Amino acid sequence: MLYEVINPDDDCIKDACGVLGIFAPGIDVARLAYYGLYALQHRGQESAGIAVSNGWEVHVEKGMGLVSDVFHDDSKLNKLKGHIATGHVRYSTMGSNILLNAQPLVFRYRNGYLAVAHNGQLVNGGKLRYYLEEEGSIFQTTTDSEIIAHLIARSSEINVEDAVKESAQKLNGAYSFVLMTKDKLIALRDPYGVRPLCLGKIDGGYVIASETCALDTIGAEYIRDVEPAEMIVIDSFGIRSDKIITTDRGAFCIFEFIYFARPDSNINNRNVHLARKDLGRCLAEEHNIQADIVTGVPDSSLSAATGVSEQLSLPYEMGFIKNRYIGRTFIEPTQEVRSLGVKLKLNPARRIVEGKRVVVVEDSIVRGTTSTKIVEMLRHAGAREVYLLVSSPPIKSPCFYGIDFSSPEELIGTQRNVSEIAQILGVDYLGYLSVAGMLKSIGLPEEMFCTACFTGHYPIKLDGQFYKTLFEKKGEARKSIIDSEI
Amino acid sequence: MLYEVINPDDDCIKDACGVLGIFAPGIDVARLAYYGLYALQHRGQESAGIAVSNGWEVHVEKGMGLVSDVFHDDSKLNKLKGHIATGHVRYSTMGSNILLNAQPLVFRYRNGYLAVAHNGQLVNGGKLRYYLEEEGSIFQTTTDSEIIAHLIARSSEINVEDAVKESAQKLNGAYSFVLMTKDKLIALRDPYGVRPLCLGKIDGGYVIASETCALDTIGAEYIRDVEPAEMIVIDSFGIRSDKIITTDRGAFCIFEFIYFARPDSNINNRNVHLARKDLGRCLAEEHNIQADIVTGVPDSSLSAATGVSEQLSLPYEMGFIKNRYIGRTFIEPTQEVRSLGVKLKLNPARRIVEGKRVVVVEDSIVRGTTSTKIVEMLRHAGAREVYLLVSSPPIKSPCFYGIDFSSPEELIGTQRNVSEIAQILGVDYLGYLSVAGMLKSIGLPEEMFCTACFTGHYPIKLDGQFYKTLFEKKGEARKSIIDSEI
Amino acid sequence: MLYEVINPDDDCIKDACGVLGIFAPGIDVARLAYYGLYALQHRGQESAGIAVSNGWEVHVEKGMGLVSDVFHDDSKLNKLKGHIATGHVRYSTMGSNILLNAQPLVFRYRNGYLAVAHNGQLVNGGKLRYYLEEEGSIFQTTTDSEIIAHLIARSSEINVEDAVKESAQKLNGAYSFVLMTKDKLIALRDPYGVRPLCLGKIDGGYVIASETCALDTIGAEYIRDVEPAEMIVIDSFGIRSDKIITTDRGAFCIFEFIYFARPDSNINNRNVHLARKDLGRCLAEEHNIQADIVTGVPDSSLSAATGVSEQLSLPYEMGFIKNRYIGRTFIEPTQEVRSLGVKLKLNPARRIVEGKRVVVVEDSIVRGTTSTKIVEMLRHAGAREVYLLVSSPPIKSPCFYGIDFSSPEELIGTQRNVSEIAQILGVDYLGYLSVAGMLKSIGLPEEMFCTACFTGHYPIKLDGQFYKTLFEKKGEARKSIIDSEI
Amino acid sequence: MLYEVINPDDDCIKDACGVLGIFAPGIDVARLAYYGLYALQHRGQESAGIAVSNGWEVHVEKGMGLVSDVFHDDSKLNKLKGHIATGHVRYSTMGSNILLNAQPLVFRYRNGYLAVAHNGQLVNGGKLRYYLEEEGSIFQTTTDSEIIAHLIARSSEINVEDAVKESAQKLNGAYSFVLMTKDKLIALRDPYGVRPLCLGKIDGGYVIASETCALDTIGAEYIRDVEPAEMIVIDSFGIRSDKIITTDRGAFCIFEFIYFARPDSNINNRNVHLARKDLGRCLAEEHNIQADIVTGVPDSSLSAATGVSEQLSLPYEMGFIKNRYIGRTFIEPTQEVRSLGVKLKLNPARRIVEGKRVVVVEDSIVRGTTSTKIVEMLRHAGAREVYLLVSSPPIKSPCFYGIDFSSPEELIGTQRNVSEIAQILGVDYLGYLSVAGMLKSIGLPEEMFCTACFTGHYPIKLDGQFYKTLFEKKGEARKSIIDSEI
Repeated sequence: MLYEVINPDDDCIKDACGVLGIFAPGIDVARLAYYGLYALQHRGQESAGIAVSNGWEVHVEKGMGLVSDVFHDDSKLNKLKGHIATGHVRYSTMGSNILLNAQPLVFRYRNGYLAVAHNGQLVNGGKLRYYLEEEGSIFQTTTDSEIIAHLIARSSEINVEDAVKESAQKLNGAYSFVLMTKDKLIALRDPYGVRPLCLGKIDGGYVIASETCALDTIGAEYIRDVEPAEMIVIDSFGIRSDKIITTDRGAFCIFEFIYFARPDSNINNRNVHLARKDLGRCLAEEHNIQADIVTGVPDSSLSAATGVSEQLSLPYEMGFIKNRYIGRTFIEPTQEVRSLGVKLKLNPARRIVEGKRVVVVEDSIVRGTTSTKIVEMLRHAGAREVYLLVSSPPIKSPCFYGIDFSSPEELIGTQRNVSEIAQILGVDYLGYLSVAGMLKSIGLPEEMFCTACFTGHYPIKLDGQFYKTLFEKKGEARKSIIDSEI
Repeated sequence: MLYEVINPDDDCIKDACGVLGIFAPGIDVARLAYYGLYALQHRGQESAGIAVSNGWEVHVEKGMGLVSDVFHDDSKLNKLKGHIATGHVRYSTMGSNILLNAQPLVFRYRNGYLAVAHNGQLVNGGKLRYYLEEEGSIFQTTTDSEIIAHLIARSSEINVEDAVKESAQKLNGAYSFVLMTKDKLIALRDPYGVRPLCLGKIDGGYVIASETCALDTIGAEYIRDVEPAEMIVIDSFGIRSDKIITTDRGAFCIFEFIYFARPDSNINNRNVHLARKDLGRCLAEEHNIQADIVTGVPDSSLSAATGVSEQLSLPYEMGFIKNRYIGRTFIEPTQEVRSLGVKLKLNPARRIVEGKRVVVVEDSIVRGTTSTKIVEMLRHAGAREVYLLVSSPPIKSPCFYGIDFSSPEELIGTQRNVSEIAQILGVDYLGYLSVAGMLKSIGLPEEMFCTACFTGHYPIKLDGQFYKTLFEKKGEARKSIIDSEI
Repeated sequence: MLYEVINPDDDCIKDACGVLGIFAPGIDVARLAYYGLYALQHRGQESAGIAVSNGWEVHVEKGMGLVSDVFHDDSKLNKLKGHIATGHVRYSTMGSNILLNAQPLVFRYRNGYLAVAHNGQLVNGGKLRYYLEEEGSIFQTTTDSEIIAHLIARSSEINVEDAVKESAQKLNGAYSFVLMTKDKLIALRDPYGVRPLCLGKIDGGYVIASETCALDTIGAEYIRDVEPAEMIVIDSFGIRSDKIITTDRGAFCIFEFIYFARPDSNINNRNVHLARKDLGRCLAEEHNIQADIVTGVPDSSLSAATGVSEQLSLPYEMGFIKNRYIGRTFIEPTQEVRSLGVKLKLNPARRIVEGKRVVVVEDSIVRGTTSTKIVEMLRHAGAREVYLLVSSPPIKSPCFYGIDFSSPEELIGTQRNVSEIAQILGVDYLGYLSVAGMLKSIGLPEEMFCTACFTGHYPIKLDGQFYKTLFEKKGEARKSIIDSEI
Repeated sequence: MLYEVINPDDDCIKDACGVLGIFAPGIDVARLAYYGLYALQHRGQESAGIAVSNGWEVHVEKGMGLVSDVFHDDSKLNKLKGHIATGHVRYSTMGSNILLNAQPLVFRYRNGYLAVAHNGQLVNGGKLRYYLEEEGSIFQTTTDSEIIAHLIARSSEINVEDAVKESAQKLNGAYSFVLMTKDKLIALRDPYGVRPLCLGKIDGGYVIASETCALDTIGAEYIRDVEPAEMIVIDSFGIRSDKIITTDRGAFCIFEFIYFARPDSNINNRNVHLARKDLGRCLAEEHNIQADIVTGVPDSSLSAATGVSEQLSLPYEMGFIKNRYIGRTFIEPTQEVRSLGVKLKLNPARRIVEGKRVVVVEDSIVRGTTSTKIVEMLRHAGAREVYLLVSSPPIKSPCFYGIDFSSPEELIGTQRNVSEIAQILGVDYLGYLSVAGMLKSIGLPEEMFCTACFTGHYPIKLDGQFYKTLFEKKGEARKSIIDSEI
């Protein structure tokens, strides 16, 4: 799968978010968080924010856009003095794309400040909001972060750690939280470990991050992944760990290996680039085709494509050039100009592909619109034959845990079989990786993964989806609905 | 008193806010609110916002700065489709100057959307927050608007009008609220009527605004002032009024007449410019001095100065020119440049004042720093004698209802008698208006006003000021404080 | 005449520019120029710029918009290190409104750097450009500043002072130049003295400015006006003056007194506010009408209106309030909103004017569109009768020396007599000031003024207007035209 | 060689510029130019501009920054109506980095409009400016474009084509000009063909561009390269070609193949990516080392690195990840943060390189500072051995034709031999490509190239370098210098 081919919103998978936490007395943690968020920027480009505590007060700066948009000079960073930081980059899934949803959210409650940054999606978020509202809660955002804040504030436990633990019992779904009080940093990962979260140390302090690349970037040393169902608390007394709940299986989103995570990150000690390359090798084993060259589509399938190239012993070529300067303020082509053949984000290298049998590797196919354009571009640039290899299985089922391809009607893999898809895309050959090949290539225990989008087996029970519709109903009306449902 | 002499923050009174509400099916209310906020901009320049409901959903756009900064092109206005609007401009008093405090605030609670815009200051805000937090409420802002939202959401009354009425019983202090649900516009004014609020009609709909100048600006027709203790509800069934509480007296802030309100606004049917001119006339009656010319200080004392000029039969001259282009992005002079005599916001017209006995009129004196500079400038420009007349009495007591001169130490009128002040300011004569003269000039019943800053008689009982300090304390600690206090 | 009533471009006279020059070793002249330009901002809001020399190099910073837009933080000022500065604010007349025309223009020629800032309009500019182009000159702007730079560069005189003097012989029309080389500041005013220019001193240095208010603002002391036909040179050897040409009469633009100049400026030692007030007095003498109140229209006619008020012994009231927050990014009302009666820049104060016989004073009437709106607003606000007094005579002839009302078709005073105009404007009485009254009120010798727009007597011979059309023609074609013309 | 490792200005070669011209009646050429400039953005990021003629007038829009900064919404594009366009992106070499130097420059001269866009550097620019100034020319920029404009304006030839041809006789050095009059588009390439320039056709019109990737991007079809010493004129009569001068040899900058050009561009029908891959293959033939993996440094050496990988039959790995979100507004790390090991633009993938013998491929080494950091990062990430292969020979001599590594003192290849450099960089092995290998790999005739930076053989005679210093001197003084020199 490819992002940013013609339109960034066209056919790309929207990940949830990236989270970051730093506890490091004596260090300018705001600045460190700023650099760390750069390393997580691929996980969300809609908003960015940093909250910092100096031990008695919490300040937050956030805004819409990239980290570099929100912190365009150091005036905001300079306001964030302290030794504990939480950071967040966001790509909206559940919450809509507005400033109010930008995180970290900072609350005042009876125990003082609470800052919350979140990656994931609660499956019982609707239900929790319903009950909280019934009890008199007010919501200013549509984020799951505001839900956990209400739960903590309403907890019978005075102590924040106990309150978090109690609140976690009520949460169901995918979540990797970084919480901050005026003097504590708390990491909380759901029992299934759906979204990644890792722990590192830096110069006498600790760092929590969605991916290890953020640790590397800020010079922190990787310690280990935060475990599913684990709560880690860091304060001036040190670091401690607690289990919030017992679970029998994991549900780590396998799409993190396929597409989301940065190639230099490691998850469960497995490097993402190498895993993708092995996906490519395995893919080539399963589809041993004859061709002239192999090419990837920048940037998401480059690792897999080199794996294919090496396995097939075919030269790896730069079949497409991605324009690095196409940003968010790009002026869309008019129809007139588009009809002239203007193609900006990706340009196929005619001299490289013309007259050739080209193996083009993609990481995944969602709706198929991007792949169709890729194939057209190659044909137009003179490719003699186009073989499309996909380093993941067909996507057949929607995701309820945070990936934004929820509608089955839009998934080409749900609607069509492989030969139909090949015809739609206009390729001479279409080869997907098998589920077994995928799992084998990644090389980690099968039971730790969620593969629901490929297999339809949902490891986390869905809960309260129907409550979603209740939000728009007013008092009495929804009371009767809820009564009839429960 | 003068605003924007050398530094806008130097010695000016910071008013609370301006609020606006429009219910007008079939009209582009967002755009109308935008123009209405321009007319209220003098009441607050820190942030601006508009929320609009289309009958089922509420959208809000807001930001820091002037109306023209927040809505710098029509892209934001175009997103705000609907027939009910609330708007707000803000100058922070209680809440600090941050984006999160920008209003209107929009909440979701069990009955759907609630938007809140507020002008005023609760005297029991600290206490209410304390009890709300104890019951599990979380706060994302430091505004009084969030307090009323919590009260409404926690009300035992399901119906929003009843809930507002119930909540109002708990509020103590100065408030003019404009509330909006998905289908109702509600105006609520405190029993003392501290801050102004008026009602108008427009093309089949209604408008609520802090001042009548906003009605004029958008072409609405004035109906009447919202009364103290009145709740007005406007929806598709029409307009209705209700009393929330009984009161025996009013406490309208007399400073609205002296300084805050726009000269073309009318309050209780009294025009502000004409009232100020009468203040000037009365001032001149009380201090019948011989001089050559009268001058005001743009813009706040011009009305009073013409009154003085007419009463004394002295020519009214433009003794100071205000630079209209000094905006918020103005680069402050360095010490070197300042020492050369750079004076930007106000320039005295040497040729007009030199060799003259000048009567300069100010609307009020807070700390005295601005007046000192005014007098210095006149002297430096060659004025032979400088007589300062002030169209209000000496400010002797702090305000707890929304005006930002709370610290008695900073009020020159608290610390010094008139002859001492004259000496400090360096004038040849200093004349204040008497309290009796002030009340007579304005010509409305004395019992409707709060004159606490001049007289020290506080019409609204102070309540819970000590809770303010509790906010920073954590759980256990503050429990014991509160126990010991109550 | 009124500026910024409904649309800033609607019916206002566009002045040419403001110029500034500072020679002051040891002082941060860039910062001083920045403050000085603020004081001249009323003379031009389209672009602003400052060039500074440190004795060997000249740097320039400029851009479109207000001084505060171009220098929105001190980063640009900090780049301008040196002891000589030239500054400019611009309202385009001849040259179109584009960045390239922003001044000061900085050139390199055989003698090094030359910076040029200009206020005025050459009447033989077209002819000079033609001949310069024929000799191989290239032009990057449409300003007169580039013309004088070419003349200086092509002069037979090596020495810059001699070259300026020689070049000045070729110029015809209105000009007030401030020129700067790496080590000299030169002021040059045309023989007729059409545009103002004055000289001041500051802390061991000198200042040249369009108006004295710029001197006051930066703490400089006024020395004298630069005389018509005078060239002043300031460098490390001191200050010297030279006459560039002999003239028998002046042609100072009387509109500077009526409208352009700031009230606190003095021209030829006559204060502008006092002159305007005397224009108002004389106007009231010529039209001794019975009424209830007098009002001006902010800001341009306020001085004249107080003069009228005092002469007629009628109270001076604030009949209109100008919204000070309407800036350049203001979103224009849609037709729907406009039809509701939205009026933003000016609001008439109903309570002040209703039922009254109102004398409204304007400084001038150009096309009449603004006055028509003013009168409508007063009527709509309930004024019983509206008497319009204009503190200048009818404008009957176009200006060729820099004021942008060149088209006779658009001047209502050219097309109609007074009673027709009164009818068009919808007033109960219309009274203009007489030419004799105007000259008497200002009180300076008649022969120093240009009154062409009122009288049709053009003191400067028009020259080469037909060349204007040649600019668009190419080589051969225009050769034949020019041959036929000369 | 690598760009943007730690600081974009750190150790990268600054190319001159990218130029573009479109003649296409009936097409929105401004928009097309906008997209074309995106494809040339890698050639210059300091400023961008587009000028368009509608047949009688030329308008230009330009500014500092990226194409997306200058044209951030379509308001500027919409102003550029016409059928002929010239575009330019700029990285300053000779001229300093200021707005005035942004191109295209637009002039008015005796024959009307002339727009000029330029890539290259005249070696006799100083001399030409000197003589032009002596003849009375004024300069507003420090670009070579202004020089050719003066020459054309002063040409004895009336016809612009003849004037360009005559002017070209006086130019010496590297230049690829795109010129535009109101009705003609003219391309002019120097006799040595130092900088690339190609010709394409589009929908009845023609396109001139620095690189073929711009043709591809806007849907134009490649016709051929513009030949050295060729002038191409396109107007409504069609397209015609002329030789401006005879030459015996070429001097095409071989660095275009090594580093500057985009991989999907073709130069003289040779694809740049494939040429770089062959450079990599040849490099691996010359240095047949044993290792575990091969990696490039994104993005500049990726093509060469795959060539090395295939030739050595070693796996090609993603040893470094480049952060795609580090833009121009990036806040530089403080020393404190830097000392923690923050590394943002490039992150080495520890899991990929640790314990490995790593071949890292760079395209060139200029000062060596970037390579040193690259090697350090690999070592720090655990690489067992680091072998650095460079796909070009050592840079030994400065460039006088437009590449910004003019100072021999800064070139590590000038100061040190290979084993010294290896020691400085801290590598276990350092291998450069030989000059012969480089020429063989590219596979085009040796006599068409300039290889001066590698060999010291300068194909274009240097001329007038000493005049450079004269610019700062004033008249008399420089006269005597010039007399003594000539």
